[in-house]
Amino acid sequence: MEKPGRNRKAEIKIGLLGCGTIGSGVFHLAVKNKRAIEESAGRPVRVSKILVKDFDEPRPFPADESIMVTDPGGILEDPDIDIFVEVMGGIEPAKSFALRILNRGSNLVTANKDLIATFGPELIEAASKTGARFKFEASVGGGIPLIRPLEESLGGDNILKIMGIMNGTTNYILTRMSSEGITYEDALMEAQKLGYTESNPESDVAGTDAAHKTAILSSIAFKKGVTQDQVYREGIQSIRPEDLENARELGYSVKLLAITECDGGGIYARVHPTMIPLDHPLTSVSGNFNAVFVIGESVGELMFYGQGAGSLPTATAILGDVVNIAGELGTPLASNRDYWLRPADVRSIGDVMTKFYMVLKVVDRPGVLAKIAGVFGDNDVSLESVVQKGIGDSSEIVLITHVVRDENFRRAREGLENLEVVLEIPSVIRVEGETAASH
Amino acid sequence: MEKPGRNRKAEIKIGLLGCGTIGSGVFHLAVKNKRAIEESAGRPVRVSKILVKDFDEPRPFPADESIMVTDPGGILEDPDIDIFVEVMGGIEPAKSFALRILNRGSNLVTANKDLIATFGPELIEAASKTGARFKFEASVGGGIPLIRPLEESLGGDNILKIMGIMNGTTNYILTRMSSEGITYEDALMEAQKLGYTESNPESDVAGTDAAHKTAILSSIAFKKGVTQDQVYREGIQSIRPEDLENARELGYSVKLLAITECDGGGIYARVHPTMIPLDHPLTSVSGNFNAVFVIGESVGELMFYGQGAGSLPTATAILGDVVNIAGELGTPLASNRDYWLRPADVRSIGDVMTKFYMVLKVVDRPGVLAKIAGVFGDNDVSLESVVQKGIGDSSEIVLITHVVRDENFRRAREGLENLEVVLEIPSVIRVEGETAASH
Repeated sequence: MEKPGRNRKAEIKIGLLGCGTIGSGVFHLAVKNKRAIEESAGRPVRVSKILVKDFDEPRPFPADESIMVTDPGGILEDPDIDIFVEVMGGIEPAKSFALRILNRGSNLVTANKDLIATFGPELIEAASKTGARFKFEASVGGGIPLIRPLEESLGGDNILKIMGIMNGTTNYILTRMSSEGITYEDALMEAQKLGYTESNPESDVAGTDAAHKTAILSSIAFKKGVTQDQVYREGIQSIRPEDLENARELGYSVKLLAITECDGGGIYARVHPTMIPLDHPLTSVSGNFNAVFVIGESVGELMFYGQGAGSLPTATAILGDVVNIAGELGTPLASNRDYWLRPADVRSIGDVMTKFYMVLKVVDRPGVLAKIAGVFGDNDVSLESVVQKGIGDSSEIVLITHVVRDENFRRAREGLENLEVVLEIPSVIRVEGETAASH
Repeated sequence: MEKPGRNRKAEIKIGLLGCGTIGSGVFHLAVKNKRAIEESAGRPVRVSKILVKDFDEPRPFPADESIMVTDPGGILEDPDIDIFVEVMGGIEPAKSFALRILNRGSNLVTANKDLIATFGPELIEAASKTGARFKFEASVGGGIPLIRPLEESLGGDNILKIMGIMNGTTNYILTRMSSEGITYEDALMEAQKLGYTESNPESDVAGTDAAHKTAILSSIAFKKGVTQDQVYREGIQSIRPEDLENARELGYSVKLLAITECDGGGIYARVHPTMIPLDHPLTSVSGNFNAVFVIGESVGELMFYGQGAGSLPTATAILGDVVNIAGELGTPLASNRDYWLRPADVRSIGDVMTKFYMVLKVVDRPGVLAKIAGVFGDNDVSLESVVQKGIGDSSEIVLITHVVRDENFRRAREGLENLEVVLEIPSVIRVEGETAASH
């Protein structure tokens, strides 16, 4: 019993496309955890060839130079490779390579969220036609098991809503702004110094990275093809330390959330700063961690938490996919996610039902509140709480609405901006997240 | 593309053994979510026969009486059944039925934690010999996906430690004691009134239920067979409201944790009340929710959170296993968990390294602290903090040790009990849980 499977079954050969931060992590773990991987996969697994741009590029873990090639054809056309692992990132040449692999029925694992979120249907269709196995657990939530649990473990349930902290950089920035009272700009500089963000942080702070992951999770959860251009996004750049302080006083934290829900017909997919109750499980997710909160009709509330990025966590997810494919090799494909080819009815942000937090700077004069309340009333927006803070020129009104249609709130906001007594509307943040546990 | 798979592949027939709380939930979901299950499984799935003790027993969801049988032979020997689902609970006749099914190579899904935790090796061996598929996701953590993520998604990593809130009843009791300041007895009565516990709550409050789940998780995580009798257990019956108050003042919450870790050789598996930092992700798990915190060498920290019990959450996990087996039917088995047959080197509680919280009632006299410190020093136990509370007869010393060997602490405790100046030691609670996020 000591070495089950050893030498009894043929070795699985991996072709690694890319050997940077994630790729060298995959090579490192494949060597270091060889025995554990073999036990999980039922067969030995080995990286047999690596495609690199340059033999000498810097990488966090050393890799075997004797198996490196720089000519894509030398690895893509190698008939001995059982599973390709694409960790180059970006759209091209990753997309062409992926299609070449899937179109001839070879198996592919990728961590490339941009590729899946943008060209998911095209890639799924290619895999479906040839029966290739195609997995991308690492594309969402780094090392956190998400896609397989949603597809298989919850395969007997209807998923209603997902709310996720899907971007570690913005969560780090908001955590620091909240705990230290510093500005967005200072917290961003800190994140950059710690290497948590790219030199151009735009994709993180504007919600683009999270929107890509939202498209992938929406497709998996609701069994329709959602692409990233269909996901509404709003970044964290205009969040002020005062908003985080107000939020805490009102019993909330502020997170950049990816939210997607399905009412049976339409899908509502969006990324924006969100106030959630302090006792919501997502509130305790701090620093650069990720977490995904799932509400299933039968299973109730679930949450998955962990490292959403980084070389080894992401490499672990990739090897999980490799183990999974290794166990299936040579067998007919059970399901090819054909549902991804069905177009999704993704609704506009105006149709979303949610609560809002709003701050208004107003002139301090009798009758102001009545005028403001009048505009809300005219647009069918009712208010849950209104607090006036300060007096005179620094007078601010902080309010939270009941659940309203986003479009109605937008019209009320326009009406307020046209009121003479309203000087400025410095903040608007959506409010979500009542949980079963909080009742 | 509208109905992939429909009518193209043969229907999967389920034989349901038991139709109480969980079984009727399985029947209910199999009918209600038929289409979603077919899409996930790649084939239609139907409950074709149900074994019951009594047609009229009360069940939360109605089931089809026309397919019910009371004779076990009529279902166990039915050659048309593809997957058996055992939801009777208890050891017998569940164990005999399970062995009969697995020994002839039929597939089995079970939610029976007592059965797996006690006779896991015997059942795994039977399945391994015949190539039967044998899954038990619902046996640990109810609806939370745990076993498959640990086996597959983390198949390329080395799991170092697992800490879990695995029993909703005790978590509810501790949450209420902490938030309301009520006694253990009053909180237990509340839990019983709400139906969160059996009429005999012994298995919950003494840690037995959690110890069974710990045995299963240890086996999966460390790839060796651990049975429930090897798991150390200590219940929550002697926790006082004062301890929860002291804990909060010191920056901790108190949870009944299932903890299992492996240092490469030995396995340390235990269930006991535990103080964890207030900012630890497990602290925010309140009420009757469950959560499992996993530390992997490469993946870092993960947490899985959700409903650990209940009819529909548990039924969801069972159907996830059914979907998983359905996708594999007719293919050779990749891995049969033969590792479960390797005996584990489970170490005694005395070998565990941990911190301790201790409360001592002492006579208020000069030199008392020196005597106490002397006993700790003689046993190689060093102290992290010491606080004296109250004066005179109500004088208590509250202390926390550094990380020590459990055995050394036990000897120090015996020494203290023999000191004339120590009147009573009302509380001892282990302290765990420094996280990467807290640094």
